[in-house]
Amino acid sequence: MNRKELKRQIEKKDSYLCIGLDTDINRIPNVFEKNWRGMVDFNKEIIQATSDLAVAYKPNIAFYESMGIDGWKALDKTLEFIPDHCFTIADAKRGDIGNTSRMYAKTFFETFDFDSVTIAPYMGSDSVEPFLTYNNKWVIILGLTSNKGAKDFQFQKLENGSQVYEAVLRRCAEYGSIDNTMFVIGATKSEFLTDVRQIIPDHFLLVPGVGAQGGTLESVIEHGANNDGGLLINSSRGILYASDGKDFAEAAREKAMALSKR
Amino acid sequence: MNRKELKRQIEKKDSYLCIGLDTDINRIPNVFEKNWRGMVDFNKEIIQATSDLAVAYKPNIAFYESMGIDGWKALDKTLEFIPDHCFTIADAKRGDIGNTSRMYAKTFFETFDFDSVTIAPYMGSDSVEPFLTYNNKWVIILGLTSNKGAKDFQFQKLENGSQVYEAVLRRCAEYGSIDNTMFVIGATKSEFLTDVRQIIPDHFLLVPGVGAQGGTLESVIEHGANNDGGLLINSSRGILYASDGKDFAEAAREKAMALSKR
Repeated sequence: MNRKELKRQIEKKDSYLCIGLDTDINRIPNVFEKNWRGMVDFNKEIIQATSDLAVAYKPNIAFYESMGIDGWKALDKTLEFIPDHCFTIADAKRGDIGNTSRMYAKTFFETFDFDSVTIAPYMGSDSVEPFLTYNNKWVIILGLTSNKGAKDFQFQKLENGSQVYEAVLRRCAEYGSIDNTMFVIGATKSEFLTDVRQIIPDHFLLVPGVGAQGGTLESVIEHGANNDGGLLINSSRGILYASDGKDFAEAAREKAMALSKR
Repeated sequence: MNRKELKRQIEKKDSYLCIGLDTDINRIPNVFEKNWRGMVDFNKEIIQATSDLAVAYKPNIAFYESMGIDGWKALDKTLEFIPDHCFTIADAKRGDIGNTSRMYAKTFFETFDFDSVTIAPYMGSDSVEPFLTYNNKWVIILGLTSNKGAKDFQFQKLENGSQVYEAVLRRCAEYGSIDNTMFVIGATKSEFLTDVRQIIPDHFLLVPGVGAQGGTLESVIEHGANNDGGLLINSSRGILYASDGKDFAEAAREKAMALSKR
């Protein structure tokens, strides 16, 4: 999906919502089998209950690969249920170099036909460039995360006065363009979004941390939105596990509605 | 495998050799089928021809997952052929937080029974800690890499005078201990190894970059070895693709011998 179409979907649905498919077979309602088929059936019902509200779906690859071969079957099958009008994100946080990087790009853009994949920036340009050779595909680079460990490196100050995460945004924005590069920006504090928007005003941001991890929708939109919309605001567990009863899909839809107003 | 046993294997085999199983079905000899079974058959012959010389094997996960479900079958099957006296490394460069990080640990330490997994440090402690709760399992954290893009962030100078990679070594060494933490240190220049050894004298280092990427064995050993041995020196393509004829296993063994003398 290209930027123009993504912008159109955001406007049409009046929503920035991305639903994270962090599907854990130990947390899905008991009506589902505790195996990869149950995982797929659960995902299918969640998607069907929310796809008119959600601009994007983001399977968290760890939850699938932790089940080995069965998990990859579940991922493959889940993708079939995501409609074409929804943007897809492989939340995989891959990052390697050369030939290996090309293999990761092949995994998510060819073997699985995702629109985008999340990438860790530590190894620099080599980790990103192979992904940028695909048309209408996106990298979503870790910029600023909202976890405790973010302070270990992301907030370290460089001798030029920048923090490491600011240097990452600046440098990584040069690898590609606003048509193929987004950044992950954790949403716990709105002042960071303001800072980020000074560095990269035009890029799309994938913002986790609304819901379970804190941060309000209004504040993220106020400080993060741009002319394209420019935001994909993720919620995972808050929607998936809104209820563990038979009404799980209905409850998920209600949570999604609350998070999908612009 | 614990540190004592790893040290013992290095001494017994008189070798630091780690063989990277970056198995590409488009590069294996024509005698093998161009599918996951061919990949396994090739790996099996490589392992059988070299396991008395190699201290460790390092499947490069990208090469397997790029084939989707079939690739994970190939990985699973390949592990069966690696003898217990060899240390196993999932070269996966994963890195996430919380629940997701625990899922990645489950993937490589439970679903697949690897001794260790490579980890990207950008998100800090949360990306590492869940892996450290396993006994006799290891994280191998990206410290200094030898690619062009390493200069984008790893060589940036912090305001305290350290380079980012030095700060990563210092901080990440605090997460665990020399019994469960190693670092990836690219081998292109020996002066870096000297610097690294001043910061982390006692940790094991996984050193890629000998062979295809440059860097000599002698220089790595001279500047990197410690009392435990302290090194796993990786070669991938140089060994796997030493010959594309029927003598590929013999040729691989010869290359492995040349890289396995201490």
